[in-house]
Amino acid sequence: MNDIKKPLPPLDYIPADIACAYDYEQLAQAFIPADILAYIAGGSGHDITQRNNQTAFQDWAIVPRLLADLTNANTEAQLFGQHFKHPVFLAPVAYQSLVHPQGERETASAAEATDSCMITSTLASVTLEQIVARAKPPRWFQLYFQSRPEDTHALINRALAAGYEAIVVTLDAAIQAPSIRAIRAGFKLPGNISAANLAHQRPDEPLQQRPGDSPIFARYRQQAPALQHLAELIKASPVPVIIKGVMHPDDALQLKALGAAGIIVSNHGGRTLDGAPASLSVLAAIRCAVGDGFPLLFDSGIRSGSDIFKAIALGADAVLIGRLQMYSLSVAGALGVAHMIKLLREELELCMAMTGCASLAAIRATQLQTTLSGH
Amino acid sequence: MNDIKKPLPPLDYIPADIACAYDYEQLAQAFIPADILAYIAGGSGHDITQRNNQTAFQDWAIVPRLLADLTNANTEAQLFGQHFKHPVFLAPVAYQSLVHPQGERETASAAEATDSCMITSTLASVTLEQIVARAKPPRWFQLYFQSRPEDTHALINRALAAGYEAIVVTLDAAIQAPSIRAIRAGFKLPGNISAANLAHQRPDEPLQQRPGDSPIFARYRQQAPALQHLAELIKASPVPVIIKGVMHPDDALQLKALGAAGIIVSNHGGRTLDGAPASLSVLAAIRCAVGDGFPLLFDSGIRSGSDIFKAIALGADAVLIGRLQMYSLSVAGALGVAHMIKLLREELELCMAMTGCASLAAIRATQLQTTLSGH
Amino acid sequence: MNDIKKPLPPLDYIPADIACAYDYEQLAQAFIPADILAYIAGGSGHDITQRNNQTAFQDWAIVPRLLADLTNANTEAQLFGQHFKHPVFLAPVAYQSLVHPQGERETASAAEATDSCMITSTLASVTLEQIVARAKPPRWFQLYFQSRPEDTHALINRALAAGYEAIVVTLDAAIQAPSIRAIRAGFKLPGNISAANLAHQRPDEPLQQRPGDSPIFARYRQQAPALQHLAELIKASPVPVIIKGVMHPDDALQLKALGAAGIIVSNHGGRTLDGAPASLSVLAAIRCAVGDGFPLLFDSGIRSGSDIFKAIALGADAVLIGRLQMYSLSVAGALGVAHMIKLLREELELCMAMTGCASLAAIRATQLQTTLSGH
Amino acid sequence: MNDIKKPLPPLDYIPADIACAYDYEQLAQAFIPADILAYIAGGSGHDITQRNNQTAFQDWAIVPRLLADLTNANTEAQLFGQHFKHPVFLAPVAYQSLVHPQGERETASAAEATDSCMITSTLASVTLEQIVARAKPPRWFQLYFQSRPEDTHALINRALAAGYEAIVVTLDAAIQAPSIRAIRAGFKLPGNISAANLAHQRPDEPLQQRPGDSPIFARYRQQAPALQHLAELIKASPVPVIIKGVMHPDDALQLKALGAAGIIVSNHGGRTLDGAPASLSVLAAIRCAVGDGFPLLFDSGIRSGSDIFKAIALGADAVLIGRLQMYSLSVAGALGVAHMIKLLREELELCMAMTGCASLAAIRATQLQTTLSGH
Repeated sequence: MNDIKKPLPPLDYIPADIACAYDYEQLAQAFIPADILAYIAGGSGHDITQRNNQTAFQDWAIVPRLLADLTNANTEAQLFGQHFKHPVFLAPVAYQSLVHPQGERETASAAEATDSCMITSTLASVTLEQIVARAKPPRWFQLYFQSRPEDTHALINRALAAGYEAIVVTLDAAIQAPSIRAIRAGFKLPGNISAANLAHQRPDEPLQQRPGDSPIFARYRQQAPALQHLAELIKASPVPVIIKGVMHPDDALQLKALGAAGIIVSNHGGRTLDGAPASLSVLAAIRCAVGDGFPLLFDSGIRSGSDIFKAIALGADAVLIGRLQMYSLSVAGALGVAHMIKLLREELELCMAMTGCASLAAIRATQLQTTLSGH
Repeated sequence: MNDIKKPLPPLDYIPADIACAYDYEQLAQAFIPADILAYIAGGSGHDITQRNNQTAFQDWAIVPRLLADLTNANTEAQLFGQHFKHPVFLAPVAYQSLVHPQGERETASAAEATDSCMITSTLASVTLEQIVARAKPPRWFQLYFQSRPEDTHALINRALAAGYEAIVVTLDAAIQAPSIRAIRAGFKLPGNISAANLAHQRPDEPLQQRPGDSPIFARYRQQAPALQHLAELIKASPVPVIIKGVMHPDDALQLKALGAAGIIVSNHGGRTLDGAPASLSVLAAIRCAVGDGFPLLFDSGIRSGSDIFKAIALGADAVLIGRLQMYSLSVAGALGVAHMIKLLREELELCMAMTGCASLAAIRATQLQTTLSGH
Repeated sequence: MNDIKKPLPPLDYIPADIACAYDYEQLAQAFIPADILAYIAGGSGHDITQRNNQTAFQDWAIVPRLLADLTNANTEAQLFGQHFKHPVFLAPVAYQSLVHPQGERETASAAEATDSCMITSTLASVTLEQIVARAKPPRWFQLYFQSRPEDTHALINRALAAGYEAIVVTLDAAIQAPSIRAIRAGFKLPGNISAANLAHQRPDEPLQQRPGDSPIFARYRQQAPALQHLAELIKASPVPVIIKGVMHPDDALQLKALGAAGIIVSNHGGRTLDGAPASLSVLAAIRCAVGDGFPLLFDSGIRSGSDIFKAIALGADAVLIGRLQMYSLSVAGALGVAHMIKLLREELELCMAMTGCASLAAIRATQLQTTLSGH
Repeated sequence: MNDIKKPLPPLDYIPADIACAYDYEQLAQAFIPADILAYIAGGSGHDITQRNNQTAFQDWAIVPRLLADLTNANTEAQLFGQHFKHPVFLAPVAYQSLVHPQGERETASAAEATDSCMITSTLASVTLEQIVARAKPPRWFQLYFQSRPEDTHALINRALAAGYEAIVVTLDAAIQAPSIRAIRAGFKLPGNISAANLAHQRPDEPLQQRPGDSPIFARYRQQAPALQHLAELIKASPVPVIIKGVMHPDDALQLKALGAAGIIVSNHGGRTLDGAPASLSVLAAIRCAVGDGFPLLFDSGIRSGSDIFKAIALGADAVLIGRLQMYSLSVAGALGVAHMIKLLREELELCMAMTGCASLAAIRATQLQTTLSGH
């Protein structure tokens, strides 16, 4: 135990020395216990993908433009007929009570205050209804398929009843990839924190494993959603179904053909396959595959407004903020999350003004300059 | 407060241990208060562009040549019918009194002593007339459009009356991008320093912001010069109008078509859009766009004579020196600035001798070798 | 002597803090004396190739896939009509008694326990028969040609009599390249450890050197196997003959034409020519040269299941584990080696599940993404 | 003064802990005074080219080959009808008494003992005749053109009379580029060391400088050899004239057309134009320009036998050793230099054996593998 400093409780004001959204990452070190921080900050394995997610943004430079006409400049987005004031979405992050006693309730308040779309996780530490009570639309529900279909249906119905307006199905986490960093830090989910919306479910069936069979493969077969179940869900859903965790153009095309309303390019913030490419590095190819009009969101590695600008320029319609959400939540609750989003927006708008982009569509039409040769 | 050492006053001699122009950067640490140094040295945001401006020069190597004929070797340049003994110009740097009690007056003396073209900033801390009193031509005036046209016109007329021979319009700083480094250092413009030539202006009108509108976009609309105003200025000006802050070939072409006499490739030393490409990395493409005869100057990142050589080889007619100007000014006033320019010239001439280039035109005809593969 | 800590004796349990196979490398520092560790860990010369062997894997990323069908997923391999439950082979590593009193006997037990193919070294520190007594097939024998043909024949016959089912001829170590690291550490083979299977051989003939001749070339001529001898061995062998140490497609083609049953791409873990390319960097070209059906194994640099995945994707049918074998042996004997292999298998299976690969053939059909541009 | 340790006197034995030729660089730190070491080790400017000279070798890997026939393997070279037992030449390094009281006399003894071609510098600190007394052929003389033609002729005649068999004209150092490192270290040539062979010359004429003229250009005009003088020298010389300091294919072609017997690709060990490319990076293009049969030597950056192998593979017929010569001389005089050369030869032979190259011609026919992608 090198670090015996006790984590600070969340502030009820915005700390004075925050100069940019990214500063919340550094500041959060003092507010989150070391083992929980390792769990949140770490990726799977040796964090290779987690690190690459961020450094990939350095491969691109944004070319300033002059004499722009910003008469009607705005950051608005339209997706599935829904209107969004800005493209900064709150990613589905599990167990937010790990960093704030009010957990996702605070995040919901911040979403409400900043007109942000919050995507509530299946593994939220407070109930779907408690979150809805705090945040007006847009609000989406993130779904992990449960091992029993009836549990999955029950979750969906409950979310729809509560007023969630889209379902985000995460497909890339059928099997848990261990985080070396979290293991070393001795992280375990504290006893007082749990998946509030799964509390009533029976425990999983025991693993069905043939003799000589790999437990890894067996677990995957048990837990990964089958193509057929996904197809049925899409068909039956009264709200748009969006698939999260897509990293290959062929998967994107298959999902589009299956009827998905949109997809989220994501490697789960580097928390699934360590050694996967940076999400940003596959974005343009996936946009190219699905075509211009198809809703495409981006997740993994965003730390600044210029990162958002780059993701949009490379094909995204909107972006999801994961770790910064937890960091700002730990520092100052709803106030922190709202401030973090405000900073990201301003940083994005600054990029837009300096590049003469009056809309997200104008960003998309922009050509970034690679830094891989010639800085 | 780690660093409690008091900054040294400017010397009245050239310090013995200066071995190259770049040494002034290191030496200046002892002569400039920490917060002011952060303001001068820092770029916007996280200094990404500011750093890349310098490292971009490492992407190129200069191939030595043998048996050169240097009979009539010189560093002379002709631009807009004006004659320059060398291509090392003093960039428009604001508030020079921050580092020397005599401010721009000292710089002007150095310009006079070294036959250098000094470009006086709109934000000079002494008056245009005080500067002219010290420096014979060539001397140019850098213009920021003011939010009221009448203020802009008054400034121009005053500069022309004082004998400035060209107007450099800076277009890339319509909106202020914060420097994390300067914020952290707590920099604020000291009360005894101000823009001497704007002293008589009325304060800006309050920001006009629609409900839900972004303050960033609103401020841009208020402060950025409109295309029409620029066109009128160019048309009306009795002296050449040169545009500073160009980073995209299309902007260069538009400005050329508009009647600009020349352009300055610059990202404002990394002080505007953090994440913009290194200025050097866009230079060749812009030269290619505007064609061979069009006056093209280069700014951002120059620290040595070989940097100047590279910028000229990649398309520049002359270069602007910003930070080294402030560093040498802080160390030894006019003497320091003059010495710094002398060193840069000698470093440039050494490169010319070793590559067999007897003129700037010969440098332009030189092919640099990329170091991105094969050192 | 900075490090005076005595090495720990091997454990009889698996240490709690092992989170991945690679962890054995770090842990082994405490179990292996410094000079022996330098000998094992070091490559030849300045370890350039040894380091590159590992970093080469970072040049590739593995793209996750969704909605896989893993119904019959397995890691089985067929080579030369032999069946292997998984592609993780134990490389021929000399003198294993350096790190465990029971030496190769423990490794053999681990091979048995994990259904792994163990390749016994000519320089094993226990007898071929002692190893066979511990490990059921598959088991292969690695051959260094001896300077006298009769010694070579005797070794082969003894291995066949003992039940070894393939002969791996190592061709890349005809001449010893010194390891700077081992020299600095003062490594010498301890008196109580020797090549148990060569104990009865007469000492080598003295070197035949012409006047002015290089001792290096003379030694090579004396010790390197001649093409003719290899051809005779291949022709006469009742079991498959596999060549280890191939780094060039032309050598691979020549050996295939000569009748080799398979080849092992390897630079001897960076222990021969310092400055040789990473083994991984030549793998795809060699696979391309020999064609799809020809047995191709890979050695040098593997530290994780994702490394194995990458090697297979780039053309390997199976991989050899060298240093991790010694590290895990030093930490916990047979138990350690078995655990290390189990971890590598699980890490490989995790990659397979996340990329939707139900077989090694599916991995081979996968396209890795280069990280050299775009992370 | 951080380092107050007194430099050690040269040893009369070879230190035990030398594992490779490169080790002499490290060891020499203890034998050479800090200011002299800065002068020897430093390049010009900020040592950019000096460093790149060495790292450029890392851009290439050497691919091992199997089953080589080394029956008649040797390292012999033929150049200008002269025979060389190996391609490791001693570069012309000035003022060798700086690191050993006997100076070049010791180096000459080492050349004799190792059958090496020593190239004596115009700036040798002992006389041409003293060197010849110690070293049998091959021996060459390096010439700097003197500012008075009669001095140049006298030097040449004296060298020919003493038995030097080739003249190496250095063209790249007409003008001195300062070394920041040597300046900082306060290096000045000690009073007891001088250019022994120039002792009788009258001092240079004062610099002829026009008003407003650059002293740099003026000095170049005074000191650089004119094309005509070089042509006359080549025409009149009874021995081969080889040009040192060539970095551009066009210069190589011009010199070949002028009648030069051979050229030496060199950037003077990074001591002339800081920012010049690594010598290795221009070698292949120059070989390509001059064609296969033309004698081409390589200088700058060699630290090991594998460096030599790479230079030969990229086009060199032989290589010059500069700094390692001074380092080994400082450590153990003639013994050290001879040992250093022996180590380089053995390192080269090891590379040859492992790549199946039985001659320098075979190395030339070898294709290196780039490490710029794929290690």
